[in-house]
Amino acid sequence: MFRNQYDTDVVTWSPQGRIHQVEYAMEAVKQGSTAVALKSNTHVVLATLNRADSELTSSLQKIFKVDDHLGIAASGLISDGRSLCKFMRSECLNHRYVYESAMPVTRLVREVADNAQVCTQRSWKRPYGVGLLVAGHDKSGPRLFYCCPSGNYYEYLAHAIGGRSQAARTYLERKHEEYPDASLDGLIGHALQALSASLAEGELTATSCNIAYVGRDQDFKELDEASLQPYIQALRDAEGGDGGGGADGAAPMES
Amino acid sequence: MFRNQYDTDVVTWSPQGRIHQVEYAMEAVKQGSTAVALKSNTHVVLATLNRADSELTSSLQKIFKVDDHLGIAASGLISDGRSLCKFMRSECLNHRYVYESAMPVTRLVREVADNAQVCTQRSWKRPYGVGLLVAGHDKSGPRLFYCCPSGNYYEYLAHAIGGRSQAARTYLERKHEEYPDASLDGLIGHALQALSASLAEGELTATSCNIAYVGRDQDFKELDEASLQPYIQALRDAEGGDGGGGADGAAPMES
Amino acid sequence: MFRNQYDTDVVTWSPQGRIHQVEYAMEAVKQGSTAVALKSNTHVVLATLNRADSELTSSLQKIFKVDDHLGIAASGLISDGRSLCKFMRSECLNHRYVYESAMPVTRLVREVADNAQVCTQRSWKRPYGVGLLVAGHDKSGPRLFYCCPSGNYYEYLAHAIGGRSQAARTYLERKHEEYPDASLDGLIGHALQALSASLAEGELTATSCNIAYVGRDQDFKELDEASLQPYIQALRDAEGGDGGGGADGAAPMES
Amino acid sequence: MFRNQYDTDVVTWSPQGRIHQVEYAMEAVKQGSTAVALKSNTHVVLATLNRADSELTSSLQKIFKVDDHLGIAASGLISDGRSLCKFMRSECLNHRYVYESAMPVTRLVREVADNAQVCTQRSWKRPYGVGLLVAGHDKSGPRLFYCCPSGNYYEYLAHAIGGRSQAARTYLERKHEEYPDASLDGLIGHALQALSASLAEGELTATSCNIAYVGRDQDFKELDEASLQPYIQALRDAEGGDGGGGADGAAPMES
Amino acid sequence: MFRNQYDTDVVTWSPQGRIHQVEYAMEAVKQGSTAVALKSNTHVVLATLNRADSELTSSLQKIFKVDDHLGIAASGLISDGRSLCKFMRSECLNHRYVYESAMPVTRLVREVADNAQVCTQRSWKRPYGVGLLVAGHDKSGPRLFYCCPSGNYYEYLAHAIGGRSQAARTYLERKHEEYPDASLDGLIGHALQALSASLAEGELTATSCNIAYVGRDQDFKELDEASLQPYIQALRDAEGGDGGGGADGAAPMES
Amino acid sequence: MFRNQYDTDVVTWSPQGRIHQVEYAMEAVKQGSTAVALKSNTHVVLATLNRADSELTSSLQKIFKVDDHLGIAASGLISDGRSLCKFMRSECLNHRYVYESAMPVTRLVREVADNAQVCTQRSWKRPYGVGLLVAGHDKSGPRLFYCCPSGNYYEYLAHAIGGRSQAARTYLERKHEEYPDASLDGLIGHALQALSASLAEGELTATSCNIAYVGRDQDFKELDEASLQPYIQALRDAEGGDGGGGADGAAPMES
Amino acid sequence: MFRNQYDTDVVTWSPQGRIHQVEYAMEAVKQGSTAVALKSNTHVVLATLNRADSELTSSLQKIFKVDDHLGIAASGLISDGRSLCKFMRSECLNHRYVYESAMPVTRLVREVADNAQVCTQRSWKRPYGVGLLVAGHDKSGPRLFYCCPSGNYYEYLAHAIGGRSQAARTYLERKHEEYPDASLDGLIGHALQALSASLAEGELTATSCNIAYVGRDQDFKELDEASLQPYIQALRDAEGGDGGGGADGAAPMES
Repeated sequence: MFRNQYDTDVVTWSPQGRIHQVEYAMEAVKQGSTAVALKSNTHVVLATLNRADSELTSSLQKIFKVDDHLGIAASGLISDGRSLCKFMRSECLNHRYVYESAMPVTRLVREVADNAQVCTQRSWKRPYGVGLLVAGHDKSGPRLFYCCPSGNYYEYLAHAIGGRSQAARTYLERKHEEYPDASLDGLIGHALQALSASLAEGELTATSCNIAYVGRDQDFKELDEASLQPYIQALRDAEGGDGGGGADGAAPMES
Repeated sequence: MFRNQYDTDVVTWSPQGRIHQVEYAMEAVKQGSTAVALKSNTHVVLATLNRADSELTSSLQKIFKVDDHLGIAASGLISDGRSLCKFMRSECLNHRYVYESAMPVTRLVREVADNAQVCTQRSWKRPYGVGLLVAGHDKSGPRLFYCCPSGNYYEYLAHAIGGRSQAARTYLERKHEEYPDASLDGLIGHALQALSASLAEGELTATSCNIAYVGRDQDFKELDEASLQPYIQALRDAEGGDGGGGADGAAPMES
Repeated sequence: MFRNQYDTDVVTWSPQGRIHQVEYAMEAVKQGSTAVALKSNTHVVLATLNRADSELTSSLQKIFKVDDHLGIAASGLISDGRSLCKFMRSECLNHRYVYESAMPVTRLVREVADNAQVCTQRSWKRPYGVGLLVAGHDKSGPRLFYCCPSGNYYEYLAHAIGGRSQAARTYLERKHEEYPDASLDGLIGHALQALSASLAEGELTATSCNIAYVGRDQDFKELDEASLQPYIQALRDAEGGDGGGGADGAAPMES
Repeated sequence: MFRNQYDTDVVTWSPQGRIHQVEYAMEAVKQGSTAVALKSNTHVVLATLNRADSELTSSLQKIFKVDDHLGIAASGLISDGRSLCKFMRSECLNHRYVYESAMPVTRLVREVADNAQVCTQRSWKRPYGVGLLVAGHDKSGPRLFYCCPSGNYYEYLAHAIGGRSQAARTYLERKHEEYPDASLDGLIGHALQALSASLAEGELTATSCNIAYVGRDQDFKELDEASLQPYIQALRDAEGGDGGGGADGAAPMES
Repeated sequence: MFRNQYDTDVVTWSPQGRIHQVEYAMEAVKQGSTAVALKSNTHVVLATLNRADSELTSSLQKIFKVDDHLGIAASGLISDGRSLCKFMRSECLNHRYVYESAMPVTRLVREVADNAQVCTQRSWKRPYGVGLLVAGHDKSGPRLFYCCPSGNYYEYLAHAIGGRSQAARTYLERKHEEYPDASLDGLIGHALQALSASLAEGELTATSCNIAYVGRDQDFKELDEASLQPYIQALRDAEGGDGGGGADGAAPMES
Repeated sequence: MFRNQYDTDVVTWSPQGRIHQVEYAMEAVKQGSTAVALKSNTHVVLATLNRADSELTSSLQKIFKVDDHLGIAASGLISDGRSLCKFMRSECLNHRYVYESAMPVTRLVREVADNAQVCTQRSWKRPYGVGLLVAGHDKSGPRLFYCCPSGNYYEYLAHAIGGRSQAARTYLERKHEEYPDASLDGLIGHALQALSASLAEGELTATSCNIAYVGRDQDFKELDEASLQPYIQALRDAEGGDGGGGADGAAPMES
Repeated sequence: MFRNQYDTDVVTWSPQGRIHQVEYAMEAVKQGSTAVALKSNTHVVLATLNRADSELTSSLQKIFKVDDHLGIAASGLISDGRSLCKFMRSECLNHRYVYESAMPVTRLVREVADNAQVCTQRSWKRPYGVGLLVAGHDKSGPRLFYCCPSGNYYEYLAHAIGGRSQAARTYLERKHEEYPDASLDGLIGHALQALSASLAEGELTATSCNIAYVGRDQDFKELDEASLQPYIQALRDAEGGDGGGGADGAAPMES
């Protein structure tokens, strides 16, 4: 068995200038279920897949509301994600207390990334094993970021993470010109199509995925199963056609 | 002997993005004795098996009352379970002191899971080796959660953990449509049947299992041996027939 | 030599979900000399064997009074036992100071077990290598517990720990119906018979064992050599007959 | 595989008097994308390459404004760079608060280097894996420094770091007599030519690079895509000729 | 070479439930020079052997006065013994300050043992490598204890520790009936005979051993060389006869 | 490959009574560029070689002013040297604040050495990898010390450290009778000749070396390139003859 | 190569009850240059050898004045010695401040030894690698101690430590009857003869050794080179005869 002597410790550089433990933590994100996010000029939509293992359980929560104007979708080690979420909520509360306003999205994202960076430089901790898609809306409009276990963050127009997310990203890239001007219903339609593309087998149902959105004059909100059903129906109707456009007209807007 | 270099330390990621130590701690839950939980629209029932090793000893306590509205059943390293129980009691007390009301179940479960997550990220501790079935009743009705050593938690309609719990889960899934509208006696009957299904040999007696419940207008309560006897009798009567329904009529309700 | 890579560290789980170091610490209890305890409806009796290595020394103290209503018998690493005893005394003192009453036995036992549990989860300590038989009497009557290095505790009617304790346990189980209604003298007789059964060679003398008891209207008290002598005599007389009953009549009660 | 026993720990000297971990951290800078900096008698210019991996994302930010008179370009582990940037901002704020003036560039650079040195001497941290080109303007005029993971810093007239930076350095050395008297537009032209020289394939576009500058009566400022376009055009026009001079005349000065 | 994987760390249990490091520390006591102690009904005597390596040096101090009523003789790592002695002096001072009386011997011995126990349970320390014979006199009369590196302590009538102490112990056991009623001079005679028995070669002189005693109305006192001489003379006279009795008459009592 | 088990840790002694890590840190000084120092009855001169790697950079600073009456030249890990320099500046400031006078050179040197010694005795740090030539002038006249990574310091009349310093030391020893009465210009001439002797190839220029001095009525001062030029010229003129004497007459004294 | 698994850590006992790291630290003393000390009824004299490596340097200081009545000579790791010296000075100052008198020699020596003992019991430090000859004069007259890295201390009439000290010790033992009544000059003569005996080659000069003394009405004082010369001369004159007696008459007493 190949043994790499530089990969058991986050404070050890390999001779090639890499920190293997950080890369392995990024691998944990790929073990998670697919999460998709995309934004228009007014809204950001988050979508995640459930892998409920029996009818007796509701699925593990992967979308978290952080503040009225901001939420996240996590993929990877969800308990790490919850820990970061707790940190974000606390930061937002402090910001509201001190400045009497919502925390700007970029500022919060930077705090999260700095928090994660610390875990990549101390010997007694491990890097977080979770990727976060951060969707928020502030004075600069709708914002979508991806926070990586490495402590880096990237702004995206649309992105998908987690296992089998490559197919979703391929869908997202193919349609990216349509997003800026899409309606919220349109965005949700695209998100479901992207999720659907990442499915290995079976098809999307209202219980096997979650959708949340935030936007102009729209607080962060997660759709319940009933509200999600029409979009799923629209997706099925549209399959074989243009999913985004089809969804746009068919699904009733719930706000 | 196969030697995995990434599995001795909770702060070390494997190249596949896994933390083996957390997975091994989850294995400890499978070493515990079976614990079963299920809920109706009004009540939650917890049931555990005893493996008393002689007539001289009472069994190891595996069901713990946390607060009037909440209790847990543990499987795995029970001393770890007790430690978490102590933490939960303290959280509930603080909540009552500050807010003058019972702590919402989900909020407590989240605190427990966050507490467990910390143990999966620090080098000088080990993950807890215990699974907790948390049964509570608050303004949102009866709630049933499973807290895992990984720091994740899941909401369930019915669940079984510990050694040989697969047979119990199979029973639980087969009957799950009956639970929401079941009476408390009915729920207890189902719990005993599920426990019974997980037995390798012998049959359930009033000393070899424990039952506790909580629900609407019903504080968390563990049945003593005498109160448990009628349910056991009903189980024996019902064997070969419909356990849930049979128990429903036969067992006297004790409140 | 077989080398187990998961057994040198208390914060490392084996792939089977076991913590070997905790199990090894439990092995230390088996290296200790035999300790026996049993209770009636009114009293609890502790008995230990001495292995004095010469006539120049008194034996190592293995029975410790903790408070007026409570004492312990230790087997294994006695210095660890003394350390836990010190902790227990301090807890009892605090309880008396705060509540102006004796500490309930179960509450103290739980504190001891929680204290031991902490040692099974921190990398810079080791689990205690001592088993404690805790005998006490409070409002709930006489109580007998066994505190294990793993951080678990068990309530017993009668129990024996330490090297060669299996023979003592066999005796205890055979006679267990007699204990609840036995007199204090009868209990002591049973304890000596159980100790005697665990001897590899030679016979019990007043210097080779220690006896202590606590009960209703009876503070925790250890018998001195002179007071112990009549019981030893009764044991010798009874050998070959029914030890418990024989002791019951013959030995003068000392209070 | 060659195994060096002295290279896994930053507190271990090799017999040759080297700290391999520091050298490996310097290797991380070479894994980053190219960053170029050069200065005239009045201005300093920073330029970085983007390696955006799809059309859906804006590039990772590599140029950071620290204070009005100072900014940095990072190459290597950007999350480490952000962490150092945060430290620099805080130092500058403190300086302004205490002395009511901008922090002198050399003083700040020294603080950064001291901060990095600490990470090369403590066992529980790792050296930063990022190189910083620090561009500032203070009473002593425009200043350009390179801060290395080793805790050393060097003053430069012009420098390039990151992957494939050798070609950029070759360009910079060939033209270095022209820099002191170059206009800002001229400097930007040279920076783009140097970046261009380091490209493995394709050509520079306004989205694939970033430019920032600071100088006399000019706060630190990063060019947006639109403002960058004319310089890119000038670069294309000039290719094959003298890039610096050509850029000097063609590109409109934006201040 | 046999390699035991469980014996390099004091926080590691062997699969047999042993802590090898504690046992090795006890081995250090056997490397020390012989120390002997015995007591009558009124006095306790300590005696140690010197192994002065040249005429230029006085011997290493091995008998230490702790308080007026108490002193110790150490064997093994004397610097560890001095460290414990310092601790004991401080405890005695505190006791005098708080209670205005001499510290009871058993209480001090327990403090020392507890102090030693801590060193057997923490990873960053090692067990003390010294055995202490503690001689004291309090309200309960003369007391003699042996404090072991394991954190255990034993009460003795007479004891010998250190290298070649087996011969001394054999002498002590053979004569033990004579001690309780022996005079101080008689005790000293026995101590010298026991020391003498442990000599590999040569014979005892007033410079090669030290004697100290404490008793009823007798503060702890170490004999100087001149005072020791008569006892040595008596020992030589008595050799071949009954040392204890012979010494009893011959040696002048010094108080 | 030869593997020395005692050389990876600064808290580990080899069986020969050596601390290899300290010796390896001293090896780091030999990896540095040459530094030369010598003193007369009135002045001390420091001289260092530059190894600038291109025309675009000024050389790494190796001579640091600590206080008006004191400066240092470093060879080895310059970032460590800067860290020590920072410490020295702080010590000097404190001394001036408390005593209102310049810190005596020996006192400061002792502080630096004590600081370095600490790093040779703690497991979580590494020894400093830098040698310091400390030049100062106080009431006791001009002083020259060498502070070694081992925590030792030595007073010198003249010394050279760093790579290829042997040749410089040979020059310095050959001429050492001339130093006490040499003028400052003469000392500088000798320093340049010693530096020149250590060059592998090429010759000394005003940009490839640095000179600083301190002395009676002369604050610590580093020569700029222009001021250095005449000395270089004199060195060239003198080559082949007596460098010291030749420099003495030829170079203009700058104060 | 023989590999001892118990010798890399100061908190690890070998199965033979030894701490190898302490023994290796004692080996470091043997790597030092020779130091000699002896005392009369009125004075103590310290003498050390220099191994100056060139004419450009004064020798490393090995004799340190601690207080007016006390000084030390170190052999081994001199930086460790300086660290201990600093500690001793501070202790003496504190004593003077609190008690307004000089610190008794034995008390200080005990503090030093306790300080050294701590380093033999903590995992994050290493034992000091230096031996100290402590010469002092207090109310009990002149005192001479040797403090060992093991934390032990010994009182001596005369002693020699360091490399090749065996020859010096042989000389010291041969003449020891002469010391108590020797004059200061006589003691110095003996010290020089002992040093001389330890020389491998060459002969003692006034620059190759150092002498210090302290005694009745004589503060601790180190001889300068000029004062030392007459004694060296006397040594040369006396060689081949009785060094002590010869020195006694010939050397002028300097006080």
